[in-house]
Amino acid sequence: MTLPTLLCEARNRFKQHLDSCDWSELTAGRKRILEVFLRLASIEGYSAVTMRTLAKEASVKAASIYFHFPDGRSEIVCQSLRWHYSNWGYSILQAIDKISEPELFWDALVSAVARSQISIPASDLWDLLVRMDRVGGFLEVEFRQEIDHWLDLCSGLFQASAASIGYTVDRGRVNMIMSMLDAGSNWGQWNGDAADLDAIAEQATIVSRAMLSAPMGRLRRTTTPDEVAKQE
Amino acid sequence: MTLPTLLCEARNRFKQHLDSCDWSELTAGRKRILEVFLRLASIEGYSAVTMRTLAKEASVKAASIYFHFPDGRSEIVCQSLRWHYSNWGYSILQAIDKISEPELFWDALVSAVARSQISIPASDLWDLLVRMDRVGGFLEVEFRQEIDHWLDLCSGLFQASAASIGYTVDRGRVNMIMSMLDAGSNWGQWNGDAADLDAIAEQATIVSRAMLSAPMGRLRRTTTPDEVAKQE
Repeated sequence: MTLPTLLCEARNRFKQHLDSCDWSELTAGRKRILEVFLRLASIEGYSAVTMRTLAKEASVKAASIYFHFPDGRSEIVCQSLRWHYSNWGYSILQAIDKISEPELFWDALVSAVARSQISIPASDLWDLLVRMDRVGGFLEVEFRQEIDHWLDLCSGLFQASAASIGYTVDRGRVNMIMSMLDAGSNWGQWNGDAADLDAIAEQATIVSRAMLSAPMGRLRRTTTPDEVAKQE
Repeated sequence: MTLPTLLCEARNRFKQHLDSCDWSELTAGRKRILEVFLRLASIEGYSAVTMRTLAKEASVKAASIYFHFPDGRSEIVCQSLRWHYSNWGYSILQAIDKISEPELFWDALVSAVARSQISIPASDLWDLLVRMDRVGGFLEVEFRQEIDHWLDLCSGLFQASAASIGYTVDRGRVNMIMSMLDAGSNWGQWNGDAADLDAIAEQATIVSRAMLSAPMGRLRRTTTPDEVAKQE
């Protein structure tokens, strides 16, 4: 069995976007700064994180931050968010990369997203920062477009996977499912066990399929969030 | 037809909690300060909002803020979050207050939550601030307990309503449904029309019922998030 072309294409776009970032020069020192930024900004707010506080928390000299990131603060903001969504993205990709059967693909995708959301603590911080930006508008326009593009690639992958198993759903429905998964650390209340994570991922998979198969309803929206995926 | 006792009790606890706050002395000036705090804190972060910035944004003198809130900043933080969840809670209560048929109750509850989440802009800011507190721990312990108690009353109402129409689900499942509803402004992409809000609320209702009826799964969790509601 092979995957339908539209699904392969969605997965390739997802992968190509991740591969377009070069992390080969990410030293341990740079990585620590990116991780400290994510944590500090999600606690104190974007604006409160200065180069000085960042240096202090990362236990490096302020001058050495500029050595690591010559373009300063805005470079750190972008690279921190990019580094964290890349990590998350690769963990999803690893789970779906070898799968050639559409039914298994959906379950593996949902399960991987639920697991990564719950077991990578930075996932929730990333979501929080993106939501804070929606309210406060901190990110540079171009980088916000990159985030939107990335979220669009994620929705596109879910939508193509749903279509490949017979569910022609709009972006609204796909985003409902993704919102449920994003909140995994809230409803999941993971106790830290591997077995408990399996059970949470199973819950996510079962419920995601119920959400897919729910009918579209009687009321037509005047403008739908996005086009319905074309089925092959 | 009347509602089962457990559901009436859950609704009464919800109502009694809301009624326990006295808003009779909430003047227009005080209200403006509470609303400005919510907006500023969700943009700048809790710590960044000083009495000075708050006074400036609310266009009042700093001294007059202390006149309105003699206990200062911590009183404003609590009252702002309390005022906003009360508004939200009363809008839900209004939608379910007269309903005496269990099947209609669930649909009215879900629909009201979806509508309030999407059409009251402060709802998303409130959620954002509560999530920021989970990461940064800004709230006073006692007030965080009040927030947790309030969220527990909300989950309890959903759980009792589900039980009254034959779905014996655990808190994990209830919180999955509530997470989907909380993200309404994300997946809903409301265009501002009343008709579009109806369509979004219908989507939420249909999908919530699919989420209720999805089976519990094969894997048992070692510790479940909460007890399953006892059915009458």
